[in-house]
Amino acid sequence: MTVTAPIAVLCGGVGAARFLRGLRDALPSDAAGSVHAIVNVADDLVLHGLHISPDLDTVTYTLADRIDPTRGWGLADESWQAMSMLETLGGDAWFRLGDQDLGTHLYRTQRLADGASLSQVTDEIARALGLAMRIVPITDDKIRTTITTTDDEVLSFQEYFVGRQHAVESTVVAFEGAESTSPAPGVLDVLADAHTIVIAPSNPVVSIGPLLAVPGIRAALEARRDRCVAISPLVGGAALKGPADRLMREQGYESNAVGVAELYAPIAAALVIDHADAGDAERIRALGVEPIVTDTVMADPDRARSLALTTLAACP
Amino acid sequence: MTVTAPIAVLCGGVGAARFLRGLRDALPSDAAGSVHAIVNVADDLVLHGLHISPDLDTVTYTLADRIDPTRGWGLADESWQAMSMLETLGGDAWFRLGDQDLGTHLYRTQRLADGASLSQVTDEIARALGLAMRIVPITDDKIRTTITTTDDEVLSFQEYFVGRQHAVESTVVAFEGAESTSPAPGVLDVLADAHTIVIAPSNPVVSIGPLLAVPGIRAALEARRDRCVAISPLVGGAALKGPADRLMREQGYESNAVGVAELYAPIAAALVIDHADAGDAERIRALGVEPIVTDTVMADPDRARSLALTTLAACP
Repeated sequence: MTVTAPIAVLCGGVGAARFLRGLRDALPSDAAGSVHAIVNVADDLVLHGLHISPDLDTVTYTLADRIDPTRGWGLADESWQAMSMLETLGGDAWFRLGDQDLGTHLYRTQRLADGASLSQVTDEIARALGLAMRIVPITDDKIRTTITTTDDEVLSFQEYFVGRQHAVESTVVAFEGAESTSPAPGVLDVLADAHTIVIAPSNPVVSIGPLLAVPGIRAALEARRDRCVAISPLVGGAALKGPADRLMREQGYESNAVGVAELYAPIAAALVIDHADAGDAERIRALGVEPIVTDTVMADPDRARSLALTTLAACP
Repeated sequence: MTVTAPIAVLCGGVGAARFLRGLRDALPSDAAGSVHAIVNVADDLVLHGLHISPDLDTVTYTLADRIDPTRGWGLADESWQAMSMLETLGGDAWFRLGDQDLGTHLYRTQRLADGASLSQVTDEIARALGLAMRIVPITDDKIRTTITTTDDEVLSFQEYFVGRQHAVESTVVAFEGAESTSPAPGVLDVLADAHTIVIAPSNPVVSIGPLLAVPGIRAALEARRDRCVAISPLVGGAALKGPADRLMREQGYESNAVGVAELYAPIAAALVIDHADAGDAERIRALGVEPIVTDTVMADPDRARSLALTTLAACP
């Protein structure tokens, strides 16, 4: 397999991270450097004074083979001494930060305070952890997802996702500040030059949505529609993890592969769907999107690798 | 022993913390609440986005019986996972922050960001750790010690103390921002009402100096000179720990008990000195300061308790 032009992968957190690991395993080792993971940062938060980038860290830790395999977030062999002290003091400990993980947030926060951009810091962390792939935040600017509940409460993403365990009904999903952001350096070039653009199996509303809200990104993707393949994060109408199904329904889409195809039809020529959703193939094709049926559940590294190969094959 | 009016103790870090523990052990348990430790915050720093108050923490952890007995700073049974990750990432790890200790800094930073004052946060931490004594920062405002070296380099206190291990020659010691600070709520009242004011055996230049630089404090102390007893941090002309001797010399004082007496003569009627310095007693008396000779080396809790009793007896 020869990779000349870049591969761009639009990413949220866990699903994207697993896909990227599969892609890394699928490619010849000297090709990993041509993969650019373009990652959501609208879930970022400043907590206890620290700048936390959950999706960037999930992707980076996973590719460093240091992600905790049970929790699916944070580092393996983690300890929780800082949280324990924070709880002793009566502090807010709902957002769990492991001790090693804190080292990453300390590093990022200090470097940002020094004047480095988020994309510089992200690159420094990725290289320090030995990653060959390029990890790039969608933007160096501030963009924040807010979710309005049916009680008219406006929650930050982490209040919704972790604090409420995404068990509340929502009306509006907004990406605050999006209109003032620019794509991070290099992102538009990568999208313009990419041999293949992959939309990872991430939450279409709150993980991929913020990427599309950054001015210039949607147009860049529309211009490369024929080189873009998406992977449905829904299997049999349900999200494997997280609130993708619920949020799609609340945003007026079918919460299944057809809804995903409808969302992505302007920017993706093909959609990888699971065998469980093969029955939706005709409806997806009717939307002008080519359905590719395979096993999308990345239960182990081999299946993730296989999914990556099938996905790349959609844009030969 | 009956304690009715407050006891105020002007404090730096380690020496003050040991004295306070001795005082706690010397007083009846229901009297500890009348002790107000008024603590230096000019060594505070913001590092990795976190607000760190080294002297407040040393005092608080010591009185909570959680200070690490070997290092003399930070918490006992500490782990260093965050620092290890920070080092892996190539971050600045010269200022060691243990994992449990980080919990304190996370708490303080979040509460300050919430709008709480440093004195409120300090009180919350002290109460959460079960302290009966009141721990009060000298000010809620920003004051920062800087030390100019003979090479005209201006160092923050922690760069000087930890980074250079106080092994450089200094010319100017300044307390930046001091003129814009006010004493924290209650501090002037405590000084006005105190039965006894103790100047703990802390560095006169960089621990007690910043307290005296806060507008209003020096005058408040001068007005209560007859109720104020200081403890010399120098024994036989040397500091037990840290650069007190060197800094006093560099600031033009004798680096011995006489130099301490000269510095404190306007605000203290008595000076507790070590047996090793008994020969300086007459020169100290000549400065208008009553020398009290005892064992000032707090090698164990019993000797700290005994020093506290001797100190209180100086202002019966």
